[in-house]
Amino acid sequence: VSDEVRDLTVVGAGPTGLSAAFWAGMREASVRIVDALPEIGGQLTALYPDKPIFDVPGHPVVLAKDLVELHRRQTLEQFDVPLHLGTTVESIAHEDDVVVLRTTDPEQPELRSRAVVLAAGHGAFSPRRPAEPDLAPWEGRGVHWLVTDRAAFAGRRVLVVGGGDSACDWALELAPVAERLGLVHRRDTFRGHEATVRRLHEAAAAGRLDLRVPWRVHTLHGDGALEAVTLQHVEDGRLEEVACDALLFQLGFKTALGPLAGWGLQIERGAIVVDQLQRTSLPWAWACGDVTTTEGKLKLIATGYAEAAVAVAQAVRSIRPDMRLQPPYSTTTGVPGAVAGVPS
Amino acid sequence: VSDEVRDLTVVGAGPTGLSAAFWAGMREASVRIVDALPEIGGQLTALYPDKPIFDVPGHPVVLAKDLVELHRRQTLEQFDVPLHLGTTVESIAHEDDVVVLRTTDPEQPELRSRAVVLAAGHGAFSPRRPAEPDLAPWEGRGVHWLVTDRAAFAGRRVLVVGGGDSACDWALELAPVAERLGLVHRRDTFRGHEATVRRLHEAAAAGRLDLRVPWRVHTLHGDGALEAVTLQHVEDGRLEEVACDALLFQLGFKTALGPLAGWGLQIERGAIVVDQLQRTSLPWAWACGDVTTTEGKLKLIATGYAEAAVAVAQAVRSIRPDMRLQPPYSTTTGVPGAVAGVPS
Repeated sequence: VSDEVRDLTVVGAGPTGLSAAFWAGMREASVRIVDALPEIGGQLTALYPDKPIFDVPGHPVVLAKDLVELHRRQTLEQFDVPLHLGTTVESIAHEDDVVVLRTTDPEQPELRSRAVVLAAGHGAFSPRRPAEPDLAPWEGRGVHWLVTDRAAFAGRRVLVVGGGDSACDWALELAPVAERLGLVHRRDTFRGHEATVRRLHEAAAAGRLDLRVPWRVHTLHGDGALEAVTLQHVEDGRLEEVACDALLFQLGFKTALGPLAGWGLQIERGAIVVDQLQRTSLPWAWACGDVTTTEGKLKLIATGYAEAAVAVAQAVRSIRPDMRLQPPYSTTTGVPGAVAGVPS
Repeated sequence: VSDEVRDLTVVGAGPTGLSAAFWAGMREASVRIVDALPEIGGQLTALYPDKPIFDVPGHPVVLAKDLVELHRRQTLEQFDVPLHLGTTVESIAHEDDVVVLRTTDPEQPELRSRAVVLAAGHGAFSPRRPAEPDLAPWEGRGVHWLVTDRAAFAGRRVLVVGGGDSACDWALELAPVAERLGLVHRRDTFRGHEATVRRLHEAAAAGRLDLRVPWRVHTLHGDGALEAVTLQHVEDGRLEEVACDALLFQLGFKTALGPLAGWGLQIERGAIVVDQLQRTSLPWAWACGDVTTTEGKLKLIATGYAEAAVAVAQAVRSIRPDMRLQPPYSTTTGVPGAVAGVPS
């Protein structure tokens, strides 16, 4: 129902937003999630689904996409959580004790709730692009900004461009599956983690990948799909054409809070300022996870989960002032607001 | 080495303490763990190893003992973390820039570190005992205070005593495995969760367990092991003897900070007062998890993990002021201080 007033709207469907909706469910608060991305999981889905994560307590190692799947089961299978994906929240207002989010979705232009929990991560993020050449004509024809499926690089002649951790990591990860792999960087040295850079040089010495430093991408060639790339040596300017049907740029990401920056929230260093109770400067908005800043803030999945628990506890108590802040043990209560059976 | 000065000593081997040692390892800080209990896992191991936990984000459901095993692999298999179990810390002092913990272990009476992270949970906890009868002679002869292994009740004539959630839960859990099961409570009504109490009455109506309300335990009988219990009706005083070879008291727990209360820490409501950076009132001691109190505090496993991350970040930075607070992504660095290979 388009104009249903839910207890909470959670903005963001990454691990923090999904856990916020879970905490809401555990408190039997009605909740929905909105996210600009077309899928749940936030950065985990969009940036590194196939990468192992080592720093979620209780998971010695978990692939990003597997963690997202666990959250899907824990939150979306257990509770009734309408998902509004591919939907950007353009503005937010508080009218007659109801928070009204205006969205880009013509079917549901307004989402109404009693409070809002902002778990928008780094906000809208987009890959950094080189100033030149113009890559727009090559979109979908062999130029990649992300690895969402490493199978797309299997058996290809791959060039990875960049000198940071992502470029180094993906060069190492894709070398075994690519037909041939080159790493192009315009400086002599890499900014990657020391151990990664060591492995990179070992792989190059063993002939498993080709280090092209200091080179840059000069021109792309191909009739339809990408077939070759001309590289230019940064110091002497000489040109060399290299066969290539997959060109992966890993130059980092630009992040932007997007429309959120204009909602009247106190923002510092590109993040929403919160206090110890995850309160924002708006009395009906709490925030948690990477979108927030506070003294001693750590941007970790683990801190996002806990901040979500605190934000939701405070937000739900603003709606039901008699609610006990401390929930009972889940070993005793199970999953109070669950619509389905016990999870497996 | 007994007098080795490690970066951190973590007091407490529950999920929060184990995650604190993990965060220390990720920052390549040397760490050890001390706990008064004989096994790792804290409450999870001591109180409810076989119970499912539903509120750890990223685990739709996990048995308490399985979560402990995951922490063992994540922390103890990956990092070099000396474990001092069955060891109570009796006093703490700061001498020549080193924290000295004096312990009950005659082999290692002093543990030295540059800082300390207190993750002592509810402190020393012990089951509440009835004022009478005197149960000391029956210890190990059929009287139980905990269920550490439900097999100990299989095929037995079991009486569970108590009226709260634990008593109700265990009555329901053990009824299918016991030969016969009675639940003895001195009041007419149970204080358990509404849904649990409803299931209890359903089970009693179906003859799967015997509700003995309002009754109390009067006398225990047996030549060697427990064979029978005389119950007394609370209102009319009449006595009745019931065959019983396993008597499980579930009257709740007393918790006490124990020696920790005398260390000069600011304590409120039986917990250590911390600020947003998990600082205690002692400049070389941080605290996290259930042992702490702060505004809006939620006692959850998930908040313990995050508080441990913040406490360790602050504690390690007090030792290495140039350390960056924000760690790099684990997807990039893996497990920096690991002594073993990639976890499985």
